[in-house]
Amino acid sequence: MSLYVMKFGGSSVGDTERMKRVAKRIADKQDEGHRCVVVVSAMGDTTDDLIDTAKQLNGQPPAREMDMLMTTGEQISVALLSIALHGIGRNAVSYTGWQAGFRTDETHGRARINEIDPRRVLASLEREQIVIVAGFQGMTVDGEITTLGRGGSDTTAVALAAAIQADVCEIYTDVDGIYSTDPRIVKTARKLKEISYDEMLELANLGAAVLHPRAVEYAKRHQVKLVVRSSFNHNEGTVVKEETSMEQGIVVSGIAFDKNVARVSILGVPDVPGVLAQVFGKLAEEGVNVDIIVQSGVQNEQADFSFTVSLDELDRAKEVIKEIHKTLPYREVTSEDNLVKVSIVGAGMVSHPGVAAQMFDVLSQEGVSIKMVSTSEIKVSCVIESGNLPSIIQALHSAYNLDTTEQAFVGGPKDRR
Amino acid sequence: MSLYVMKFGGSSVGDTERMKRVAKRIADKQDEGHRCVVVVSAMGDTTDDLIDTAKQLNGQPPAREMDMLMTTGEQISVALLSIALHGIGRNAVSYTGWQAGFRTDETHGRARINEIDPRRVLASLEREQIVIVAGFQGMTVDGEITTLGRGGSDTTAVALAAAIQADVCEIYTDVDGIYSTDPRIVKTARKLKEISYDEMLELANLGAAVLHPRAVEYAKRHQVKLVVRSSFNHNEGTVVKEETSMEQGIVVSGIAFDKNVARVSILGVPDVPGVLAQVFGKLAEEGVNVDIIVQSGVQNEQADFSFTVSLDELDRAKEVIKEIHKTLPYREVTSEDNLVKVSIVGAGMVSHPGVAAQMFDVLSQEGVSIKMVSTSEIKVSCVIESGNLPSIIQALHSAYNLDTTEQAFVGGPKDRR
Repeated sequence: MSLYVMKFGGSSVGDTERMKRVAKRIADKQDEGHRCVVVVSAMGDTTDDLIDTAKQLNGQPPAREMDMLMTTGEQISVALLSIALHGIGRNAVSYTGWQAGFRTDETHGRARINEIDPRRVLASLEREQIVIVAGFQGMTVDGEITTLGRGGSDTTAVALAAAIQADVCEIYTDVDGIYSTDPRIVKTARKLKEISYDEMLELANLGAAVLHPRAVEYAKRHQVKLVVRSSFNHNEGTVVKEETSMEQGIVVSGIAFDKNVARVSILGVPDVPGVLAQVFGKLAEEGVNVDIIVQSGVQNEQADFSFTVSLDELDRAKEVIKEIHKTLPYREVTSEDNLVKVSIVGAGMVSHPGVAAQMFDVLSQEGVSIKMVSTSEIKVSCVIESGNLPSIIQALHSAYNLDTTEQAFVGGPKDRR
Repeated sequence: MSLYVMKFGGSSVGDTERMKRVAKRIADKQDEGHRCVVVVSAMGDTTDDLIDTAKQLNGQPPAREMDMLMTTGEQISVALLSIALHGIGRNAVSYTGWQAGFRTDETHGRARINEIDPRRVLASLEREQIVIVAGFQGMTVDGEITTLGRGGSDTTAVALAAAIQADVCEIYTDVDGIYSTDPRIVKTARKLKEISYDEMLELANLGAAVLHPRAVEYAKRHQVKLVVRSSFNHNEGTVVKEETSMEQGIVVSGIAFDKNVARVSILGVPDVPGVLAQVFGKLAEEGVNVDIIVQSGVQNEQADFSFTVSLDELDRAKEVIKEIHKTLPYREVTSEDNLVKVSIVGAGMVSHPGVAAQMFDVLSQEGVSIKMVSTSEIKVSCVIESGNLPSIIQALHSAYNLDTTEQAFVGGPKDRR
């Protein structure tokens, strides 16, 4: 008998039929002899509808009141799922975030979990109840209702799994698991059997909102074993855990790409200390998220540097840089959109030199010119022009032997990188 | 500067336009220099929609989970109303029932208020905030969410007014106030300037769900001054309080009627002690609400008695009586629907004999035969066939001088009753 946390997203409980299917799925798990704690998001479009209504009343609704409003979405879901479970003869009990013991800080709209008091959840498990907990929400010490912001429901599930020492935290979603790359782009993309937290973090863009990085970080910190699987079939899914059994043998686990990339370059910046801090401090202040930063060499006491932002933040980034000109007399600003960031990710990379060089090889054979490069222990990212992306991804996928059906040792070049 | 509790029902906040109008109304009250605590029901059909969805999942949803579900309706209302108030530049704060300090017993679906801890509401008033409280809901000492059942939002408003010692509790609704009788039936029906709690209780059927008896009882017990008024205009409304200034002079304040009446008669019941207790105990057990009970004289050691129930409970009542036959060998059961209960209500009645006789006179002049009669200190009810009801009500309305434009001394017959 294991203790499971099962998390179902909004599309999995989008209508009463799906709600019933989820209830059946939970009942099956119980019939296998397991204890179940379930975390649910708001049904389908509920959250968007609530936001729309609020905006009709007030273009800038206060965050505290939005939290009061939004948390009803999950409360409706947990109540209905519990009602559905009772409908098939199961003893279930639903809890709001605060009832389940989620204590957060006071940052309405994107609160952080301070602690979880799981006594009520554990007491219900003792009574052999299926416990249904509202995702995405908590309460401050002053009794104010908060929401956890983006990735909140995933984080709820993982945090709860850690607090009650669950054996597994299953994230049910609309895809089968984590793939070696986007199966819509590359036909030979394979579902990964397992993957490490760090790799998962790097691959977070794959499969869109399958698993929020924040939840993965939390899982890593508390060593919660995650399984990403489909709520629509019984396929096995992908296990996310610290050490994957075949880790040493695998060089590249997956290939991620991000089409939402723009580059900004600032040319002819005086080479004095504190310049980067000034530029990126100001960007951060204005809420612009910078991804890759590259500084080229210094010539004539002037430096050039480039950074990437998401496409929709390009205009804001340029405005910020323009404003900085008053205090930082650079020569010129250029920018470029229509770019893609392609990344190869693999925990085995660190012990296999030459992986990056192979990537550059493949890109060059595809006739692609590389704009920027960024590397980490387990990742190489190249920013390139968005030419024939499917062909490029497919070429990389084949080059790193990801087309084979199982994760296995990949005999990549050993003497380069 | 007064402290107001303002209660708005579901139809007053049925859509965003109405919500804005309510926000404006509250802002106006604040501009007049008053402090405001607002109680709101769920928007329009929200509650019914939630029930429908639940029933699709489970024909008999558990009460505890239904409370989790239903309370979201009011939480949405309070959040949106607060958002609307912020939209017009007001500092408002919304609270769920439990946040506002409502502690109830554990009877899910129809919990009773045990106590109210108003500290949070009072602290918000100190901060010059408009406080918006979700009606209809509370929490048990164990942190379980409960609903107060029928009349719950009115009761929330009155109970909160008592707890924070508000000067007035205004119940905003879709009618102008309490009328001397139904203005849809009698053109000369007048809005009452004031009325006592007891009269209000008897007149509860007038104007349908304008004010729930439970809230009136609570108001009477805690001496909360109520004002029933329209949320769609600024007319004055009706004041409900203990002693109305002109009480001594008024004989009949209003005429109520209820078309939802059926009679059951049990004939030839053995005249032994405990018979009534047996019959009405069983009916109560089965949840059948009995209104008027009349027992006729005893002949040959057998009694006949009759009682009224609401039309939709007639079949259940007859079933119960049928079952009782096993242990109570009565001779015959008859029943009759298509009846009306007409009541004249007035606190002054007690000091004016002959009021009942005048009613019988009027009914007889209208050619109506009276089926049952029931009286109290401030009320006479007659159950009659539902003939030409408008004509009957109009005749009574005129006979008791209710057509005059102001409440005033009514020189009714003094030597009869």
